[in-house]
Formats: sequence, C-alpha cells, structure tokens
Amino acid sequence: MTAALGELLERARGGHRRSIGRLLSVAERGGADADELDALTVACTDRAHVVGVTGAPGAGKSTLTGALALALAAQGLRTAVVAIDPSSPVTGGAILGDRIRMDDAVAAVRDQVFIRSMATRGQRGGLALAVPGALRVLEACGFDLVVVETTGVGQVEIDIVGEADTTVVVLNPGWGDAIQANKAGIMEIADVFVVNKADRPGADDTVRDVEHMLDLGHRGVDGSWRPPVVRTVATDGRGTDALVTALADHRGALVRTGELEDRRTRRITGEIRSRVLHALEDAVTREIAAAPGELADAVARRTSPAEAARSVAARLLHPDRGRTGHGGL
Amino acid sequence: MTAALGELLERARGGHRRSIGRLLSVAERGGADADELDALTVACTDRAHVVGVTGAPGAGKSTLTGALALALAAQGLRTAVVAIDPSSPVTGGAILGDRIRMDDAVAAVRDQVFIRSMATRGQRGGLALAVPGALRVLEACGFDLVVVETTGVGQVEIDIVGEADTTVVVLNPGWGDAIQANKAGIMEIADVFVVNKADRPGADDTVRDVEHMLDLGHRGVDGSWRPPVVRTVATDGRGTDALVTALADHRGALVRTGELEDRRTRRITGEIRSRVLHALEDAVTREIAAAPGELADAVARRTSPAEAARSVAARLLHPDRGRTGHGGL
Repeated sequence: MTAALGELLERARGGHRRSIGRLLSVAERGGADADELDALTVACTDRAHVVGVTGAPGAGKSTLTGALALALAAQGLRTAVVAIDPSSPVTGGAILGDRIRMDDAVAAVRDQVFIRSMATRGQRGGLALAVPGALRVLEACGFDLVVVETTGVGQVEIDIVGEADTTVVVLNPGWGDAIQANKAGIMEIADVFVVNKADRPGADDTVRDVEHMLDLGHRGVDGSWRPPVVRTVATDGRGTDALVTALADHRGALVRTGELEDRRTRRITGEIRSRVLHALEDAVTREIAAAPGELADAVARRTSPAEAARSVAARLLHPDRGRTGHGGL
Repeated sequence: MTAALGELLERARGGHRRSIGRLLSVAERGGADADELDALTVACTDRAHVVGVTGAPGAGKSTLTGALALALAAQGLRTAVVAIDPSSPVTGGAILGDRIRMDDAVAAVRDQVFIRSMATRGQRGGLALAVPGALRVLEACGFDLVVVETTGVGQVEIDIVGEADTTVVVLNPGWGDAIQANKAGIMEIADVFVVNKADRPGADDTVRDVEHMLDLGHRGVDGSWRPPVVRTVATDGRGTDALVTALADHRGALVRTGELEDRRTRRITGEIRSRVLHALEDAVTREIAAAPGELADAVARRTSPAEAARSVAARLLHPDRGRTGHGGL
C-alpha cells in the first residue's frame, strides 16, 4: 500500500481535499497502513502550531474555532480542525448542528480551512493512537494551525487537548462555570481562557472567577506564563483577534523558554507509551490464556485478580523466571 | 494495614455502613491497600447478582434504580448501587440532583440499600481497576443485588456495564431514542430494555423501535434469550415489579445455559488484563527512558513513534534479543 499512500500524500500536500480526508481515514483506522503512513508523514519537516480547544458542550467551541479559522485565513494562514465527537447519543445531535453552522461560516475561505470529525467509538485506546497520526498528516499538508477540539468529558480527551502546544479552555458567563471546569480538571490544563458569549450577563463575574483561581496558583510555561482571559462573541467574531494574539503570545513564550520542545517530547513519549501498551495487549491476552489454571483459580476466587495479574506480568517481562512462578516485577 | 482492613471488613459484613464506605474508598484509591483488600474479599463466597444499568443522561436511571431497590427491599433483598459519575461539568449537577431524590426515596429502607458514587476522574484506567474491587466488597457484605449504574458515554463505562451478569438499557419515549442508543453501541449490550417515563407520548413507538431492532438480530444468552422490553414509570414505581421479574428470568437463563460462568470468566479475564496492562505501564515508561536516543529520534522525527514503540515492546518482551535491536513481537 506504500506506493498508493505515497501518491495520496503527494496529492494531499498539493491541497487536494479528498486525499487529505482519505489519509485521515487511514490514520483513524490504525493498523499496518497507519504505521506506513506514519513512516511517510514523520519525514515531512512541516510543523504546525497544535492548539487544543476544550470546554463543556454548548460553550461554543465549534463556532469559536470557525471564527478563529476565519481570522487566520484573513492573514493568509491555513487552519485544520480535528473535532473529536463523543459518541454520546445526547450530544451527538448538538455537535452536528454546530459543525454545520461552522462549515457554513468557512465556506468562503474553503481552501484555507479543513474540518474533520473523529468519533471516540471503536476500540479502546483507539483515539490516543489515531489523533497523533492524524495531526502529522495535517502538518505534512502544510497547515499552519491544527486545532484539536473536544468536549471536556473523558480523561482520554482531556489528555489529548492537554498535550497540545497551546490549550484553550472555553467557558461561558454564568454562575459557577469556572468552578465546574475546575472540578472537571480542565482549568489546570489551560494556557489561554476564553469567556465566549461574553455579551451575556455574568461575563464579568466569570472573568473574575477565573482570574481569582489563577491568583491561587496555576501551571504555566516555566511558571512565567499566566494564562490570559479573552472575551469573545464567536457568533459575530468579536474578540477573535485578541484570541489570535493570545495564541501567538503563548507560542512565543513556548519557544523562548524551550517549553515547546519539552511539550513535544512529552507528547511523543505519551504516544510511544500508548502504542507500546496497545501492542502489549495481545501479548497479555495470550499470556492469560496460556495459564488456564491460573484463570480458573481467579474465577473460582481461590486467588485474587491482583495476584493473577502479578504472575502474568512477571511471566511477560521475565519469561524464564516467570514460568517457575517466582518471577517478580 | 491488613489487620485494620480485616476488622473493617468484619464490621462491614455486620452491616456497618461507614465501614462499607471506607472499604469502597480503599478499593477506589487502588494500590497496595486495595490489593490487600482484594485478597480478603476474594475469599468471601457470597455472590451477588451484578446488574449494569446504562442509558442517556436524564433517562431516569437513578430513579429507576431507586425504585428497583425499594421493590427488592419489600421482598427482603438487599441492594447496593455503585453510580459512576462522569466528571463532565455539565451533567455533574443533574446527577447529583437525581442522587438526592433517590436517597430520599430509599430513606425508609435504609439498611437494605447502600448507594455509592464513584468519579470517573483520577488516573487513566482507574475505573476499570476500581469497580471490580468495589463489587467484591459489596458482595462480601452480603448484598443480593449490586447495581453498577453509568451514563452510556465513554467506552470504559460501556465496557463496565456490559460485563455485568445482566445489563439493563434505559430508554425514554421520543423520536429516535432507540436509534441513538443503537448508534452509541449500547443496544447490543442489553439483556433487558426499560422504556422509562412510559406514561409519556411515544412510548409505544419506542417499544416498537426496540422490538424491531431485536427482530433484526441481537446478542443473547446462547442465542436463546430475547431481551424483554419493560415499561416503567420510575417516579411512582409502576413497572418495577415487571423489571424485577425480567432480571430474575434473565438470571435463570444465565444459570441454565452456563452463560453465568462464561460471563464471570470474561469479567475476570478482562480485569486481569486491565491489571496487567496497568502494572506494565511503569515498565514501559522505564523502558522508554532507558533509550533516550530512540526517544530523541522520534521527537526529531527521524523515526516514527510506531517504529519506536515496536522496539520498546520488543525489548520489554524479549530483553536479550531486544537489546541488540533485532527483537520482534
């Protein structure tokens, strides 16, 4: 398939949208083709600014991302968006609606914006493997900014946006939105805060809540970066330029402090880790099946699953010692 | 800590609610204490009927579970509920609200019902490790029915309810609810369907939709079990007795066909698998750190993360061959 993938990539790098889409499908499906694709894209030297966008459903993330893409297009910059759609039956419809409005808004600058949805369903851990590969495809295609947009629900999604170069947390005016975000663990991953729908009552309170939490302590670039709080009304584009500036400022700080390389190293480390664990899953399944008596003991509750797991792990890591039942981690 | 845990377990088995709560906290935190607790509870021979309850937020799962617990209490049976709360800032409030109403309903039969919430936050994979241990605590405490209740959002949560002895999927009347559930992949894990809020318009349509999907094909106990569709109005208890009957029928079918043991074997296999992978995480992290040049190559994009992961996995599984760089999975 390498030849075919190579041709696809060439067309995609030339701006052919359907080829980009097909490559993203390859990355999403995973497996040998995705590995081959990775070997091709990894060699492309283009690097995009990877921006994660998260927040509660309905916060206006998609509309904001659309407005951001428009503002960047006006500067001649190309934006790609990977929107991670949770498979929840409840939010599915709303997200689709957002997406349609957004596609509408960006129709005018079609060639400079690429939007792709990715489902969170499929095999466990699939997302953690699929997203990095998809980002490399988009980088290889020369996009200047790649946005990963997700709803702050699951740990996997939070990990993904939290490992972007710059993470944007979108809040809305209203009692306790900042506090809820704090509980969900998404305050601490923010490099930039956006209070969207800032024309609504309560925007000042929400900005004040965020600033107060930042006073109490926050993660930063080398401790020297305090996340700015940007007010936007994404539906009419107000505040978008301030967001563009905040993103550029943060990127500048990342480069200046060396944190950009640190973050990319962490991101690659995390990806390798996920891939190794994924690769080990089959080996673990085989190893459990290889000692049926051990499994039967656990089922009959003669041993605890923790004990059984220790033996299996020991045999996997120390095949020789493990077989005698005395292996340890 | 074993002595202290042993005493706690003794008190918990005597019905002391705070001790049950403390043991569940130990199971939830994981680590060495949880392993010790497991070694104690695994030896208790009590077995509960483990029922998973899932459905969209707002479907009335908590109220239904409360009504079910009340109906069982009337028969002298004890029910424990582990409610897995997604950490979403949006649904958090609603779930808390449900919980309060439910606690209210069961206050009258306090000693026969135990309710515990478990957050999905914390370390990745934490839930897959914490829930089985918590279930064993509750079984050891002699509960007849243990309900694991979760919102059908994440794959981990779906896996957990899908591995119960009996999985109940709660739907509501209204256009497309069954179709949405199907998309979310929760139709196929159902052993019993509940159409809750069945006094509302559209209940007949929803029942018909489900029956139609069942006609098209469904998973079953040995292919011989067709999931019944039960109508309930959980707020006033209507239909709860029919649900109790459906659960008992399904359990009977599980025992008759030998599927009960199969399901428990699958559940234990899955748990051991999760525990082994969790145990391997540290080893993987160490192995990545052990070859800094390899990581640097991946960061600098001289090799793909997939390639790097293959090398790391090979070294882990075949320490001798792997060190020379020629190891394979």
